[in-house]
Amino acid sequence: MYRTHTCGELRKSDINSKVILAGWVQKVRNKGFMVWVDLRDRYGITQLIFDEERTAKDILDRAQNLGREFVIQIDGTVIERASKNPNIPTGDIEILVDKLTVLNESLLPPFTIEDETDGGDELRMKYRYLDIRRTPVRDSLIFRHKVAQEVRNYLSGQGFIEVETPYLIKSTPEGARDFIVPSRMNEGQFYALPQSPQTFKQLLMVAGMDKYFQIVKCFRDEDLRADRQPEFTQIDCEMAFVEQDDILNAFEGLTRHLLKTINGVDVGEFPRMTFDEAMERYGNDKPDIRFGMEFGNLNQVSQHKDFNVFNSAELVVGISVPGGNSFTRKQIDNLTNWVKRPQIGAKGLIYCRCNDDGTFKSSVDKFFDQADLKLWAEKTGAKPGDLIFVLSGSTEDVRSQMSALRMEIGERLELRNPDEFAPLWITDFPLLEWDEDAQSYHAMHHPFTSPQADQIELLNSDPGVVKANAYDLVLNGNEIGGGSIRIHDKETQALMFDRLGFSEAEAKAQFGFLMNAFEYGAPPHGGIAFGLDRLVAILGGQETIRDFIAFPKNNSGRDVMIDAPAPIDTKQLEELKLKLDL
Amino acid sequence: MYRTHTCGELRKSDINSKVILAGWVQKVRNKGFMVWVDLRDRYGITQLIFDEERTAKDILDRAQNLGREFVIQIDGTVIERASKNPNIPTGDIEILVDKLTVLNESLLPPFTIEDETDGGDELRMKYRYLDIRRTPVRDSLIFRHKVAQEVRNYLSGQGFIEVETPYLIKSTPEGARDFIVPSRMNEGQFYALPQSPQTFKQLLMVAGMDKYFQIVKCFRDEDLRADRQPEFTQIDCEMAFVEQDDILNAFEGLTRHLLKTINGVDVGEFPRMTFDEAMERYGNDKPDIRFGMEFGNLNQVSQHKDFNVFNSAELVVGISVPGGNSFTRKQIDNLTNWVKRPQIGAKGLIYCRCNDDGTFKSSVDKFFDQADLKLWAEKTGAKPGDLIFVLSGSTEDVRSQMSALRMEIGERLELRNPDEFAPLWITDFPLLEWDEDAQSYHAMHHPFTSPQADQIELLNSDPGVVKANAYDLVLNGNEIGGGSIRIHDKETQALMFDRLGFSEAEAKAQFGFLMNAFEYGAPPHGGIAFGLDRLVAILGGQETIRDFIAFPKNNSGRDVMIDAPAPIDTKQLEELKLKLDL
Repeated sequence: MYRTHTCGELRKSDINSKVILAGWVQKVRNKGFMVWVDLRDRYGITQLIFDEERTAKDILDRAQNLGREFVIQIDGTVIERASKNPNIPTGDIEILVDKLTVLNESLLPPFTIEDETDGGDELRMKYRYLDIRRTPVRDSLIFRHKVAQEVRNYLSGQGFIEVETPYLIKSTPEGARDFIVPSRMNEGQFYALPQSPQTFKQLLMVAGMDKYFQIVKCFRDEDLRADRQPEFTQIDCEMAFVEQDDILNAFEGLTRHLLKTINGVDVGEFPRMTFDEAMERYGNDKPDIRFGMEFGNLNQVSQHKDFNVFNSAELVVGISVPGGNSFTRKQIDNLTNWVKRPQIGAKGLIYCRCNDDGTFKSSVDKFFDQADLKLWAEKTGAKPGDLIFVLSGSTEDVRSQMSALRMEIGERLELRNPDEFAPLWITDFPLLEWDEDAQSYHAMHHPFTSPQADQIELLNSDPGVVKANAYDLVLNGNEIGGGSIRIHDKETQALMFDRLGFSEAEAKAQFGFLMNAFEYGAPPHGGIAFGLDRLVAILGGQETIRDFIAFPKNNSGRDVMIDAPAPIDTKQLEELKLKLDL
Repeated sequence: MYRTHTCGELRKSDINSKVILAGWVQKVRNKGFMVWVDLRDRYGITQLIFDEERTAKDILDRAQNLGREFVIQIDGTVIERASKNPNIPTGDIEILVDKLTVLNESLLPPFTIEDETDGGDELRMKYRYLDIRRTPVRDSLIFRHKVAQEVRNYLSGQGFIEVETPYLIKSTPEGARDFIVPSRMNEGQFYALPQSPQTFKQLLMVAGMDKYFQIVKCFRDEDLRADRQPEFTQIDCEMAFVEQDDILNAFEGLTRHLLKTINGVDVGEFPRMTFDEAMERYGNDKPDIRFGMEFGNLNQVSQHKDFNVFNSAELVVGISVPGGNSFTRKQIDNLTNWVKRPQIGAKGLIYCRCNDDGTFKSSVDKFFDQADLKLWAEKTGAKPGDLIFVLSGSTEDVRSQMSALRMEIGERLELRNPDEFAPLWITDFPLLEWDEDAQSYHAMHHPFTSPQADQIELLNSDPGVVKANAYDLVLNGNEIGGGSIRIHDKETQALMFDRLGFSEAEAKAQFGFLMNAFEYGAPPHGGIAFGLDRLVAILGGQETIRDFIAFPKNNSGRDVMIDAPAPIDTKQLEELKLKLDL
């Protein structure tokens, strides 16, 4: 062993001990007659001291020439520091060095290894092995480990079995694009990497495994939106002989356990809200309920005057900004421009100030009088001192625009308390989504999601309104998990395939092995999957997942550190019976 | 919830309780007026009873028509069994059913769902979801879960951090064949699936992560030997600031913990043996030391007579079979034929009986007298009543032949006690292996394995004899783990690349990002990787890994259940700019 202690553990009680430490040179302060070196490892920083009086001359000389990030090993004695540093746990002591070994030198790193670094994103990713030396990144990875351990121990304790499902599986044309893997031993044939272990976990239920989980990598070859990765990690779970409530309770238990053990936060029972209600109240199926500003439907109180913008709208919605009457004209203009950006796409933003004296001043005073505006205030819950924003248009557009505006204002007014955790179940998702392009329905979740029992009839008469036994878990405005109760009987499955426009033969071709399995006694079952990358980031109080992944890829799916993907040997392609066709 | 209890938990103390159970129909015994159904789930089997007197007629009728593997739910009362079954934990009770719901029907399964099934391997794999319903397979998967949990909890407790490394990495032409993954977003470029996270774990050491582990899938596109899988699971580990002993101690701790918690076996300190010693004593670098029959070198005592077979041999080796003098002529002939099979390749087998009266009778009495044979007995440790087998030839051939013979006899004489666990460290592996075809050395472990410090000079003069800081952990004759201390300084690495015939440019092209990382302060480090599939099988007392993998592939790399790999849509190939070239 190269050390007797880590750089994070020595304290006052260790004074006079002989110790050996090893680590990286964080910083050298050289006063000539005296040199201090901050020595860093995974566990912390310990100060080393070398001086003319107490240190041999050759050691002092060599200490003066240590470069940043050199790897050194030292023998020395723990002594009390003259000027203590209360900011670090080892701040009471330093090491008087009497032996110094340079284990390895280092080039000057391309950015500073500090909490706040001068390195940009690309540079940090290219030298990720240096970036991880920085405390925030290292701590994020350790945090991820802790969360994963808690998940495993909790679920194991509840009788769940982690089963490894295969990575080399079969491509299915449905859904997102698969990454494929040519098979050399089976010419002209291909494996696919799993987008999720969905079918395998359902097979495990057929197999009687009853309570399954797995923390598992999944793969999707999609054009990457910001903060998405082509490979990502899921906590994948499935249970048999359960109804929706059983699943919700089981995984509410898991989430509560994580919030308690990881964040020290006790949250009560999670609220549950239907998809429809969430859309009405927040315009969004993953609302951040840490703050209010709920939607007020203004249709009844805004479509009775000559204002054609409203009269022609499917939906008129207002939100009340608490204390917003203090907004300057400039602030309001700024938000107006913000919602008019193409990413949001609103045509304009109507506002109504709620004065302290109970009067109102709106941008549409020409059309609406004080009595009208008072009703707007009632519908949006606005009080004197608040500001009402109103948007109108098609239901879909207005909801998404107003939801974005609500989040933006929540952010600007710092209403999204980072220390608060507000989980929320969204239930009763629609079973089907209408696909305009294809002029057909497709499954909102996946084709094995069960419709609600009392609505199966509607699958024939009005498929679009049928609700599924499908649910999402939302935390602080992020979807952290989602799942459904699956169909386990042949009749419903056949009906579902029919509604989705699959012929029996097509269904067989795509889902044959699962349908075969269902012939041999499939139990009622359902499950859920959590996005681990996102979950860890949110529990860690961060907005982006990047630093919770050791070696992430950039938005082109590239690992810039190892420079992958890359061209390969033609010999490799020949062995696989493949040719490039650029 | 579809049940109040599982099928494994009801006992005498539950008598008179109202319960709801759900599960699969294992067996129906129909006496007409009385029907017994064995109901099975993951947790066990509970007997249901329906009879004319106490059960409603329609329920009794339906019970009579239940088929094997139907999924049913029942309400009933726990009653005491008339004739108890002491072989199952629920054998004292049965359930008098008053409500029966068929949750799903089942076709007749293609093989019996029993511990000993009538299904062959291919059939079991095709219907793996039924095979897993069988107790031995289900228990193997649960066992695997327990082992993995113990590994994670133990290593976490020791300060190891599980870090997920990427699956979409870069192909390196060295070593085994990679599975490759075409990149759609980067035309003409490819990812590779990792054969192991070797370079990433070394990068994590450079990154200061210090103690890393990961239970991780690895991929090798090799022609499959029996009991190998194209995807397999490793417990991958690495530590920084350590020497070989630190690693051996750390992972001896892990292995001892597993043997204790999983198998309830206390093993003392693991013996350590050098590679050279293992080859001399057992002809094998992964000896099963649960039994003796160590090699006796007979060169000195067998090459002084006119027996040219021995005189011309590089090595003459004997082993003593305990009690082997009782072998019949036929048994000896059988073993002689066994070693002469092409898979073993010996030319013949010489034997020497050690009679109870202290005399010897050998198959080469023409050449050797009693005094000679007495020396053979001394060298092989043979006692009266034993039998000595002797092989001769080139060192390499004789060792491998005699090792195979030793194992075969150990197996036949049942000397390999399945309840005993005999771990063994093998150390001081050769650094380099001579490749006859390429007429060059290649790295026995990998090119980053460090030579032993005192032997670096020999790299120039006699590279073949240089020993590495490399080690394997052997358990009952199986290599369950292996690793090495890595090179962390540039000079040694450059020398090593040179010995391996890499130009500087070639080394850069293949290992560039790791070599770059090593410029920025690489700490001394080393690691080990365990094959989880094999480890679990051995701890579970099995010889094959197949049933410890939920969905294994066959020897052609096929998943016969999902029928993968398979042809894909030409559209998919087009998007990837690839063409088949069959």
